[in-house]
Amino acid sequence: MAIITLGTMAFDAIETPFGKIDKIIGGSATYVAYAASHLSQPIQQISIVGNDFPEDEMSELKRRGVELTGVEIVKDKKSFFWSGKYHLDMNTRDTLITDLNVLADFNPIVPEEYQGADFLMLGNLMPSLQINVINQLRNRPKLIVLDTMNFWIESAIDDLKKVLQMVDVLMINDSEARQLSGEFSLVKAARKVMGMGPKFLIIKKGEHGALLFHDDHVFFAPALPLEDVFDPTGAGDTFAGGFIGHLARSKDISFENMKTAIIVGSAMASFCVEKFGPQRLKEITKKDIDIRLKEFVQLVNFDIDLV
Amino acid sequence: MAIITLGTMAFDAIETPFGKIDKIIGGSATYVAYAASHLSQPIQQISIVGNDFPEDEMSELKRRGVELTGVEIVKDKKSFFWSGKYHLDMNTRDTLITDLNVLADFNPIVPEEYQGADFLMLGNLMPSLQINVINQLRNRPKLIVLDTMNFWIESAIDDLKKVLQMVDVLMINDSEARQLSGEFSLVKAARKVMGMGPKFLIIKKGEHGALLFHDDHVFFAPALPLEDVFDPTGAGDTFAGGFIGHLARSKDISFENMKTAIIVGSAMASFCVEKFGPQRLKEITKKDIDIRLKEFVQLVNFDIDLV
Repeated sequence: MAIITLGTMAFDAIETPFGKIDKIIGGSATYVAYAASHLSQPIQQISIVGNDFPEDEMSELKRRGVELTGVEIVKDKKSFFWSGKYHLDMNTRDTLITDLNVLADFNPIVPEEYQGADFLMLGNLMPSLQINVINQLRNRPKLIVLDTMNFWIESAIDDLKKVLQMVDVLMINDSEARQLSGEFSLVKAARKVMGMGPKFLIIKKGEHGALLFHDDHVFFAPALPLEDVFDPTGAGDTFAGGFIGHLARSKDISFENMKTAIIVGSAMASFCVEKFGPQRLKEITKKDIDIRLKEFVQLVNFDIDLV
Repeated sequence: MAIITLGTMAFDAIETPFGKIDKIIGGSATYVAYAASHLSQPIQQISIVGNDFPEDEMSELKRRGVELTGVEIVKDKKSFFWSGKYHLDMNTRDTLITDLNVLADFNPIVPEEYQGADFLMLGNLMPSLQINVINQLRNRPKLIVLDTMNFWIESAIDDLKKVLQMVDVLMINDSEARQLSGEFSLVKAARKVMGMGPKFLIIKKGEHGALLFHDDHVFFAPALPLEDVFDPTGAGDTFAGGFIGHLARSKDISFENMKTAIIVGSAMASFCVEKFGPQRLKEITKKDIDIRLKEFVQLVNFDIDLV
């Protein structure tokens, strides 16, 4: 089943306690595409790049079933550029540079051949653009998943509240859930945020895993304890790609299947952080993913006889 | 199977964002006893109290199968007193007062009738006293579990290293694991700490759950997402009591069964934080525990077909 993904395709410069890289492919849509395409195809990308985005990266994505008709190439501008430095705990980072470049004029157009897709992944981007894309779709997708961040909670809350009413699943991290709801308890925060629209809420806690809320139900997926987190850039987008990729592959958007989708997302994210940029996502095979998923089963599996 | 517990019996004064209480029963051994006695009896307590420790608290413990022969009562002194205030996140707290009182002269004596116990739970206390108790046991228990804290890492590292070589399971929190090992990655920290003696290591992460390490294996138990954490005091000791109580009840100290024991410990801890002090541990029934354990199964249970 087709997945439309909206998001950025960019260059990143990254510094972590383990190393530094001056220029590597990044962007939310890039990570979503590399992750999701391991599980389901086609991925129908909507994004914008400048004249500097590498041809071979485009070819690599196409080879993996990622359609790029919806990616606008602006000939006289540069691609979006982000530079950040991670703290030792890897859960916090400082943004050093944000050069919007082509992103400043982004006006996403849904190509005719994307119409009819069953899944829509709205990557972290200005909420008005996310709304714009939903409104262009003649048939509502079976599932719309939204990613956003503190920046939009602070600067575009009205548009964000509008898009929240149009989506099925929201993905945010724990501090964003607290910020959006004004509640410290994540259980209370989840209830309030679901009251704003999305029937399903995923709260990401980085190395501490992720929670899935729906009605009065809650499911917890751990993060795999790793020897080293080399570079967390794109882990959230990769998680989103794994999540929606699994749902599209299995053609099942039930709460039960979303539990599995979160485990798949966590497994994909655990690869992402092993190297700079999306590098590991290009290297891994179906077999690697299977082995990693088995590790997740091992990690949380227990037998219980009640007391 | 009998469980010997060494630890404090005390009065606490507690302030949390939800309320304040000037005097309530506390102490590591108290929490361990209330938790473990739901699962296995007898609990053979080794502790020290002053002339102010309530008779009815002693009777309540006895009624629950807690033997108090090893609890010294000092007639002319007061019980250990601790006072603390929790921050909003409930993971950090300031200690306001520590009045050692009777604890200053504590010289634990293992009563003759405790000899032969299969389990030994060494609650958080001066490492030299923990060693002292191990040395008094004529037959080594089948399993020795050690709890400790940053204070002893900083002030009694030599004794702590000695006792680490004498125990099977160590329980510490994530920051203590980092402090003890000098490693930031918990996977690396775990390997180093297990190199110091204990074959099993439990790293507690508060609201983020707990990890069990053994050889190259790792198991993760989540904490139950709660509406409110009312008072975290004693949650770690309650976790320890649930853990060792389950092992004693099931007479099985395998890694597989320790996974279940950690879930039981987490379930008991999830009750503990619902009210001030050990109050909830006195109220709950076997049925409450069963229902809570089912919630843990629901929380982490998922089906997976590999990719």
